[in-house]
Amino acid sequence: MTPEQAYAELIRRSREQKVLSSCVDLLEWDEQVCMPRGGSENRAEQSALLAGITHDQATDPRYGELLSLLEQSPLVADPESAAAINVRELRHDYDRERRIPRRLVEEWARVSTLASQHWGAARERSEFKPFAKWLDRLFALAREEADAVGYPETRYDALLDDYEGGLTTRRLNELFSQLQPALVPLVDQLHGRPAPAPAHVLAREFPLDRQRLFLEGVATALGFDFERGRLDVARHPFCTSIGPGDIRIAIRYHARNFSNGLFALLHEVGHALYDQGLDSDHFGTPLGESVSLGVHESQSRLWENQVGRSDGFWRHFYPQLQGTFHEALHDVPVETFRRVINHAAPGPIRVQADEVTYDLHIIIRAELEQALLSGDLRAADLPGAWSDAYRRYLGIAPKNDREGCLQDGHWAEGLIGYFPTYTLGNMYAAQLFSAADRDIGSLDERFAIGDFASLRDWLGARVYRQGSRYSAAETIERAAGGALDPLALIESLSRRYELSS
Amino acid sequence: MTPEQAYAELIRRSREQKVLSSCVDLLEWDEQVCMPRGGSENRAEQSALLAGITHDQATDPRYGELLSLLEQSPLVADPESAAAINVRELRHDYDRERRIPRRLVEEWARVSTLASQHWGAARERSEFKPFAKWLDRLFALAREEADAVGYPETRYDALLDDYEGGLTTRRLNELFSQLQPALVPLVDQLHGRPAPAPAHVLAREFPLDRQRLFLEGVATALGFDFERGRLDVARHPFCTSIGPGDIRIAIRYHARNFSNGLFALLHEVGHALYDQGLDSDHFGTPLGESVSLGVHESQSRLWENQVGRSDGFWRHFYPQLQGTFHEALHDVPVETFRRVINHAAPGPIRVQADEVTYDLHIIIRAELEQALLSGDLRAADLPGAWSDAYRRYLGIAPKNDREGCLQDGHWAEGLIGYFPTYTLGNMYAAQLFSAADRDIGSLDERFAIGDFASLRDWLGARVYRQGSRYSAAETIERAAGGALDPLALIESLSRRYELSS
Repeated sequence: MTPEQAYAELIRRSREQKVLSSCVDLLEWDEQVCMPRGGSENRAEQSALLAGITHDQATDPRYGELLSLLEQSPLVADPESAAAINVRELRHDYDRERRIPRRLVEEWARVSTLASQHWGAARERSEFKPFAKWLDRLFALAREEADAVGYPETRYDALLDDYEGGLTTRRLNELFSQLQPALVPLVDQLHGRPAPAPAHVLAREFPLDRQRLFLEGVATALGFDFERGRLDVARHPFCTSIGPGDIRIAIRYHARNFSNGLFALLHEVGHALYDQGLDSDHFGTPLGESVSLGVHESQSRLWENQVGRSDGFWRHFYPQLQGTFHEALHDVPVETFRRVINHAAPGPIRVQADEVTYDLHIIIRAELEQALLSGDLRAADLPGAWSDAYRRYLGIAPKNDREGCLQDGHWAEGLIGYFPTYTLGNMYAAQLFSAADRDIGSLDERFAIGDFASLRDWLGARVYRQGSRYSAAETIERAAGGALDPLALIESLSRRYELSS
Repeated sequence: MTPEQAYAELIRRSREQKVLSSCVDLLEWDEQVCMPRGGSENRAEQSALLAGITHDQATDPRYGELLSLLEQSPLVADPESAAAINVRELRHDYDRERRIPRRLVEEWARVSTLASQHWGAARERSEFKPFAKWLDRLFALAREEADAVGYPETRYDALLDDYEGGLTTRRLNELFSQLQPALVPLVDQLHGRPAPAPAHVLAREFPLDRQRLFLEGVATALGFDFERGRLDVARHPFCTSIGPGDIRIAIRYHARNFSNGLFALLHEVGHALYDQGLDSDHFGTPLGESVSLGVHESQSRLWENQVGRSDGFWRHFYPQLQGTFHEALHDVPVETFRRVINHAAPGPIRVQADEVTYDLHIIIRAELEQALLSGDLRAADLPGAWSDAYRRYLGIAPKNDREGCLQDGHWAEGLIGYFPTYTLGNMYAAQLFSAADRDIGSLDERFAIGDFASLRDWLGARVYRQGSRYSAAETIERAAGGALDPLALIESLSRRYELSS
């Protein structure tokens, strides 16, 4: 077998595996968006079965043979060549997968499907207690996975690596310990700040059908391609890629809380632009895949905050918004509207949090999940620990479990070690946006004339179409022209929110 | 290994296979209801891959070993026992699957996904020509499958057997040659019949949101359980079972053609009641599965026609209908409405056909697909042959390909040998309904007071919960208390449409 033949087989297998795992993605999308309640047991069986088959394929020893053969061949001599990159990344994934037994993979799929249902029910009733035993099972599985995969210093390393390749707990805590003390004085200044008078405008009546039309228009203007994607409603907003021509967003929107749906849309469109912008010629191989969840999150946070809260964005969209919701906004000038949507104040809910306080929500979750994983915190004690942390970092406490530790579905879905990627994303986004602004020149003026393509193209060349060519850290460094610096985020927040850091 | 252990493993494998094939069903549902156009290529890959894996599982030689072991064991001594029934049916399926190479299964999945997309495009433009080469490919695959499976007399036998186990071409043509000459004089009488004056009431404005609410109400009243199912919109109405608690209906409805959506709903609810009424304890084994497509169709046609066009049904629902669509129906008494929806006249479109002419649409398709399969008819010549047959049997000709040979998506989906099950269903339905009416007593009066449970329970005991215990023919015979007789359908039509046979 020549290296060329081996490489062709490797790529065929990689693509096949991606196609199979995209079937799992569709099962999950359907579960969130379409599935009737009665389907949940069978869905758990379906997910477990497909996850097991995917795992079998991903750990087929044939992969190992092909990789070993290729690693010795001249095909990978140039480390920047497509072959070298794909072989490097597939080796990393193969080694990780090989260490996880199929039984554990199926158990994850089954438990997380059921746990998500129970989380939904617990959240609805705002009662954590019946969910505690599910959380115990989930963290037990996470420990089992970490032990199977192995880690340099602590189990949490093994989980982080799955979402942000190469990131260690030590490095994460180092970044967070730079960020957190710089955020606290900003948040302190918010406590003294009065709410802008007409804050209640967002609680006026924004008819759902009109929101839908307006949001579809915004998504299209930013570059989301409805020919290759869709927009739906789900309890928890998300974006998923079913295939190169099938990228799906789901959000929730409410008649009397306009900003919820709006910023969920901008966030998920940011994810979707990345997925729709990947190089489809390399679909199903690392070169055609996003590099990490942190970088993915940088795209969602960039469009949500750096773009969607800017002056130029609203100079462009406000006239249309005001026309669409004339009853609600007829007496609200654009400056007032911007002040209202950019109002920052500590609150209990992460997905409704402003940009300034957002990362403290994440730092709390990262601390708590490390404690739950190590066993320092028992699941049953989570509500208390949650309230304590919120009091300590944000000066507030949740009224109940629903606005406390039941607000997010991530852990129930088995996403443990995932939350930090949100704050990594915020840090990356601040650096990327400032570099793009420097390269392209006054982005705000571009937005004001409805030009979002300049920014999208800049990101397309430097992020989307790079796939997994470089590590996450290197991708950001090359695009932004400098190493990661948590203080770039502090600077961006201070400037835009007029806070002194 | 004891027979008990072998049986447990057989059942586990059967269930797993059902769970896997239900993932394929979800891919197909999504393709019809949700998928953006850009997703079609990837969907073809997904379907082909899963179909291939399903086929591998279904043909695993381990099945053959388990079946041989069990066939010799005392476990199956009583042919009416659950074990004997499941072993008998799984043997039939295993033998069939083993004869079909995986390559052919994948090719079917890939070609039918693409052909369906091309059919949709061809239908939209009403242009058969570009679709002809797809039809050629589909029938070539059907021939290949028939040759692989084997058949007693003709290739068409092998295809029929997949949808209606045990039915031969000879027996089918015998039934159809009894039915067709009895139908023609009925249809002749329709030609002379004037349309009821206010036929245009159905073309008045029936707002879509109100149709949706009304139809959901009807589905619920008939017994469709929305906790274990959903209702969507698709180009072509269908019902699919994703799992025992997840039965999905899709229909299309139009503001200016109320009866289209209504009867599509009743039809698909009939299918869904069967699926929701199967014995979920036996899910994933023959005892928990519908016996044949013909029997499935008998359920849809029974609720659509025998129930949905009856006097009692409308005595119950008309006041609500009239209230919901006051503008359209304020001047239409219930008797007029019933005359309008029961108006029978030859037309070009099968799904819009009345009960009297419907089976001639099917007999035409059965003849044409036999000719396409044998090679007597070339795909390119289909439009002409289609028009000829319509002129001959129904005295009309389609205006264009869209209302001619492009109207149905079945062949594009790979469903060849499927159409006859519609007419088998009509024949079964007539016999079942008359037996139920005899057993329960005056069903029409039950319907008038909103009692649909009596009929549903009768069908549940005699059809739904029988699963595949008996052959299709025997299931109907036992339920209806007599052998299949095509003239029972003629009698039912003559009586209800006041025609002399």
